[in-house]
Amino acid sequence: MNYQTILGKNDFIEYLRGKKASFLLAGSVSKTCEINGLSQAGIPGMMNLTPTLDAEFITTAQVRSLEDVPKTLKGVPTPALITRAVHELKPFADIEILNLGLTHVPQINYFDVHNFDIKPSDSIKTGANINAMEVFQKGVEFGQNFKTSNDYVILGESVPSGTTTANATALALGYDCKDSFSSSYKNSPNSLKAEVITQALETSKNSVDIFEKLGSVGDNMIIFNAGFILGSRANNLKLILAGGTQMACVLLTVNSILRSMGGELDSSNLALCTTKWINEDKNSDIKALLELLDFPINAYSANFDFSSSQNPLLKLYDEGEAKEGVGAGGALVYGLINGLNNETIVKKVESFLGA
Amino acid sequence: MNYQTILGKNDFIEYLRGKKASFLLAGSVSKTCEINGLSQAGIPGMMNLTPTLDAEFITTAQVRSLEDVPKTLKGVPTPALITRAVHELKPFADIEILNLGLTHVPQINYFDVHNFDIKPSDSIKTGANINAMEVFQKGVEFGQNFKTSNDYVILGESVPSGTTTANATALALGYDCKDSFSSSYKNSPNSLKAEVITQALETSKNSVDIFEKLGSVGDNMIIFNAGFILGSRANNLKLILAGGTQMACVLLTVNSILRSMGGELDSSNLALCTTKWINEDKNSDIKALLELLDFPINAYSANFDFSSSQNPLLKLYDEGEAKEGVGAGGALVYGLINGLNNETIVKKVESFLGA
Repeated sequence: MNYQTILGKNDFIEYLRGKKASFLLAGSVSKTCEINGLSQAGIPGMMNLTPTLDAEFITTAQVRSLEDVPKTLKGVPTPALITRAVHELKPFADIEILNLGLTHVPQINYFDVHNFDIKPSDSIKTGANINAMEVFQKGVEFGQNFKTSNDYVILGESVPSGTTTANATALALGYDCKDSFSSSYKNSPNSLKAEVITQALETSKNSVDIFEKLGSVGDNMIIFNAGFILGSRANNLKLILAGGTQMACVLLTVNSILRSMGGELDSSNLALCTTKWINEDKNSDIKALLELLDFPINAYSANFDFSSSQNPLLKLYDEGEAKEGVGAGGALVYGLINGLNNETIVKKVESFLGA
Repeated sequence: MNYQTILGKNDFIEYLRGKKASFLLAGSVSKTCEINGLSQAGIPGMMNLTPTLDAEFITTAQVRSLEDVPKTLKGVPTPALITRAVHELKPFADIEILNLGLTHVPQINYFDVHNFDIKPSDSIKTGANINAMEVFQKGVEFGQNFKTSNDYVILGESVPSGTTTANATALALGYDCKDSFSSSYKNSPNSLKAEVITQALETSKNSVDIFEKLGSVGDNMIIFNAGFILGSRANNLKLILAGGTQMACVLLTVNSILRSMGGELDSSNLALCTTKWINEDKNSDIKALLELLDFPINAYSANFDFSSSQNPLLKLYDEGEAKEGVGAGGALVYGLINGLNNETIVKKVESFLGA
């Protein structure tokens, strides 16, 4: 089998084999990413452009708001290349972009770029300053009204410094998960990250309710998508959360909101799909995070790596750099259950990087 | 990237990646093709059968109205083989035939063969004798009423001697394009072709309006499809004109009709897709033709050739024979944006020709 079942059974993902998928990319910017050295998901000083460039690249194979694709300091190219490779080999039926507070609107035509009038959020060190209830409601409404002519939706994210805001959010919500969160670094900058998170929690400590907490330590992607998940249950939308610990945090947020409201969730049409790099990460624990949920969740990881590649930058993925993002894990599982194999995807990714 | 953007940006074709296409083949016969040596798109003396056989072959992989597929004098098989190869590897959701004046109705069942009660046209040397306004109106009406459950339409053509009628049409409409038109010959029979065109223009010189001109020097495919394009703008049909200089002439005809009527066109859901052989042809200039239009147009060419083939007849394509037709360019772009690669298509085409 070319995927692994992390939690649940494989029936859900097998049911989706051969079916048509829409790919949604949720992009947001938090000024947390301006903290020097915290995130490596982009170019220092221009980290805020990363989600915009990712959106442009997966749709058109071009970056238009800058001259090159985002990469880490070590030169590891954005996981958008993986998502795009799958799309070229086994196209999604549709790609749509959710603008959840971008500094720059992606320069693309024809593709739906949903605008929710959401602003980039502030640094969580001093408070993200998000009207969380409003952003959440926008997500709920979008979920309730979301129609697709395809069979299911793969939801990816691009949020620089997103693992930090996710980690802070889960801690602020009271989950015991200090060591379960991932980072785009191989050697996660734990002291800096821990410091930012500690300050964020300190800043938010007087928050009186869950939305006040989310608005202080969270990011728009997490808050909106918690709403999207809940709202889309009305239509039983089959939804794959394509991501690692950030998407796990979205689920933890859903969980906390349900607890606070005394609500229940039918999670049978939900799953999380991530990369092998996340599933096997020694510095984080996606399974432990998902086991904190009160509801059962299907979770899978793609058996994909760059071991067949000669490209040293791609091989850094196998050593633990970058790991996940831009829906790469979900895109890979989608590709692998639709007839693609590891080597074909590797070759396609390599083709984007030249000889 | 496995296609080239000739004009415009790649957003439109990227938006269509992964989406479902209907393939329409517009076939018509002009007695111009009976001029000995003018066209090589078929068997001398039976050139009129070519569109019928092409329609049979792309739908059923059989020719029924004759014992063999149409080929040039040198034995180059019809580009219908390319279109069929793509259809076998990554099927169109639907194929429909537009009978725009065939001498023989294709012998196929189940597939829609739209009949418009249009007769084959006469030779343009002495006047094509087409009621152009009527044919145009039939196209407009068909476009206005055309419904598809698929996401877009690829429109190909099969018209023996069609590059000659297209060239004559564009000149009669006043475009400066004498050297921009292609031919199914590698060494375009310029003196004969020029002579036919000169006579056609002489015959039509007293035409008082655009439709009278079109009815004298044009062909049914050009006139009908100009109407189809205009009519289908009412529904914003996403339409790919799959062809080379003939399809460019259809657009020039649309352009002239708009000029004469003072109308405007939203061309954002239109594109032309052709082969590399047309795009790189030294004897014609598709880009120059399209730049004569008053409206912007997206145009792409497929990065496909037969260099990986051992078949000497197919390799003649790479030397400039045949080049385009039966929607081959559009079919190739469709295949390439849906995960097919050059070599797979080459092998499939070879399989039609035996070992």
